[in-house]
Amino acid sequence: MLSKSVENSLDAICRGTDEILVKSELAERLRTEKPLRVKAGFDPTAPDLHLGHIVLLQKMRQFQELGHKVIFLIGDFTGRIGDPSGRSTIRPPMTEQEIQENAATYASQVFKILDKDQTSVRFNSEWFGQQSAGDMIKLAARHTVARMLEREDFKKRYASQQPIAIHEFLYPLVQGYDSVALQADVELGGTDQKFNLLVGRELQKEYGQKPQIVITMPLLEGLDGVQKMSKSLNNYIGIDEPPKDIFGKVMSLSDDLMWRYYELVSTRSIAEISQLKNRMEAGDNPRDIKFLLAHELVGRFHTKSDADRAQSEFIAQFQKGELPADLEAKDICTQDDHILLANLLKAAELTSSTSEAYRLVNQGAVKIDEEKVGDAKQRIPVGTTHVIRVGKRRIAKVSVIRES
Amino acid sequence: MLSKSVENSLDAICRGTDEILVKSELAERLRTEKPLRVKAGFDPTAPDLHLGHIVLLQKMRQFQELGHKVIFLIGDFTGRIGDPSGRSTIRPPMTEQEIQENAATYASQVFKILDKDQTSVRFNSEWFGQQSAGDMIKLAARHTVARMLEREDFKKRYASQQPIAIHEFLYPLVQGYDSVALQADVELGGTDQKFNLLVGRELQKEYGQKPQIVITMPLLEGLDGVQKMSKSLNNYIGIDEPPKDIFGKVMSLSDDLMWRYYELVSTRSIAEISQLKNRMEAGDNPRDIKFLLAHELVGRFHTKSDADRAQSEFIAQFQKGELPADLEAKDICTQDDHILLANLLKAAELTSSTSEAYRLVNQGAVKIDEEKVGDAKQRIPVGTTHVIRVGKRRIAKVSVIRES
Repeated sequence: MLSKSVENSLDAICRGTDEILVKSELAERLRTEKPLRVKAGFDPTAPDLHLGHIVLLQKMRQFQELGHKVIFLIGDFTGRIGDPSGRSTIRPPMTEQEIQENAATYASQVFKILDKDQTSVRFNSEWFGQQSAGDMIKLAARHTVARMLEREDFKKRYASQQPIAIHEFLYPLVQGYDSVALQADVELGGTDQKFNLLVGRELQKEYGQKPQIVITMPLLEGLDGVQKMSKSLNNYIGIDEPPKDIFGKVMSLSDDLMWRYYELVSTRSIAEISQLKNRMEAGDNPRDIKFLLAHELVGRFHTKSDADRAQSEFIAQFQKGELPADLEAKDICTQDDHILLANLLKAAELTSSTSEAYRLVNQGAVKIDEEKVGDAKQRIPVGTTHVIRVGKRRIAKVSVIRES
Repeated sequence: MLSKSVENSLDAICRGTDEILVKSELAERLRTEKPLRVKAGFDPTAPDLHLGHIVLLQKMRQFQELGHKVIFLIGDFTGRIGDPSGRSTIRPPMTEQEIQENAATYASQVFKILDKDQTSVRFNSEWFGQQSAGDMIKLAARHTVARMLEREDFKKRYASQQPIAIHEFLYPLVQGYDSVALQADVELGGTDQKFNLLVGRELQKEYGQKPQIVITMPLLEGLDGVQKMSKSLNNYIGIDEPPKDIFGKVMSLSDDLMWRYYELVSTRSIAEISQLKNRMEAGDNPRDIKFLLAHELVGRFHTKSDADRAQSEFIAQFQKGELPADLEAKDICTQDDHILLANLLKAAELTSSTSEAYRLVNQGAVKIDEEKVGDAKQRIPVGTTHVIRVGKRRIAKVSVIRES
């Protein structure tokens, strides 16, 4: 059933992972050549997916390509509780209707990544909806307060006297019991989910099942290359964004970050990525390697022709000015969340002073990303990178960075 | 509806209580002259009642006499959880059948104290049996981990790294919700239940009800006058014990303890008890006052004629030897849980030496509670009091006490 040898499967599964608990158990189960039941749970609260979410979905996709059964579990029952993972405040419970709407939006997005025919979409209300208050009490008896308080976020909140509602202790047990109900062989989650995934492992043992293998995926860094990708930090690439925006954002990545994204979200094989690295080391323009990634992602979230068009437009807009191959890259720091254009020009040594900057902007001699600008007081936000031209000769690729 | 004035009611209700939270609220509700709904919860695990349990039942009885509605709540649903109150280990859940059997035994015993016609026996499975797992989660959201860990026994166990299963945190909430379901005006419990009773108060507020008044009753000291009455310490008076045993055990109480028992378990009014105290101070033999208590309790747990017979037999057995009115009482200490008779005789100065003690026992000259003894090595347990006679003239009432 498995399309590759166990060793190749293991390599593909290990790619980009943070931890595999326990790898020897995974190898053993792969050796049986039976398709594994691979579970990943999704909280139905944030259906607007970005590339940070794709890391996990991409790993699920890899399992599908290896012939395994992937279960996309929507925590509709637990949605009524709220997910305290990694958060320091109690989240309000959701209504039945909100959950249903979010779940539908989810489904419309994830099949841009997953193979629909090989994906089983389940809802944990299937089993928890039938359970009684007594059943919940019995489940609660399977774990101790002390072990729950070992979870990093609970520990911190308890220590800093922030309230933890008792139902929040039930959530990891509910999530763990999902693995029992689904007889999961493998559960995937972010590194921040490790504790909960291990609870599933323990509960399976208590219910006489072989404990699932836990695989955690790293949290993807956002466009700034530092902080976790998130909507609230505005450093994300949303999969429903227009082709032009996705393409442009990928092109704005640093080279290091590009390789990280290749590893975690691209469908290219490890071997192909290795070849691309060799090409770049041999002198290929990193921009061309980045084109491949941008094209792939736009093609996946939209269509191949959208990707072609986005690439043509990008080239038309950014390359008609014949950027030099050795374009100088500069990082400009600010303590604010933006910097005024005039200050940026001075700091990047594109003008000798801010007054020169004002003058040149007024003369129409300054272009950002090949578009003329008219206001030297324009705010350039932290986390953005732009090609800035002053006159014909002065040119640089400038990234605005928060001073740490 | 109330048979006495508010002030008299308050006096009667306050009798023997440890705490009333909040007394002004109680006075206010009594002033409405509407019968109050008075709840006390019983865990269906220990149906063999002793006088320690009667303290609470007697308080319920007093509410009945004042015209209020008493609810005897059997925690059959919570019985499946186990009650962690005041215990340091996790109690195993009970089966449905055990709970039913225990509940039946309970009912057969409590109506020796309570007025059956004025008692409503309820089971919390009535409301919890219908609830879903989701309802339990919502209930759990009403309280925080930190506040639960403030409970004395949880705090100790957590600090000493003894496991607390998470379901134990649900129990106080379940008990508290019982007050919501029953719309209790008052909840009674032992001092060790105070935390749980207050949870009920808080939950009622959250559910838009007037918070119940919480009344805690002290834990009755056992026959030794020091430790809490309990079966395991063998210092109890069981209500199903034979008349002779109940009578004899009451007669063995110290005078101080007798007044404590009058206050907490007798049906006599405060005024009557006050008169008895005056009689004793005026020179009446305490033994006669104790007769009244022993007779009352045997009469209540058995019949009046049983009480008469027990008293006659007691007099026949213990008084035919014409105990002097000024019988000397002696406390003999031991570090062990018993003392050998020979050592006791020497320590109580009834013999000049242990060897004299052996000789006199062998000669048949020593009587314990008017019965001849033949073995000087007989063990006399800690916590017992006996009239010991050596020959005709030497006599004392000896209590064996553990050295503290």
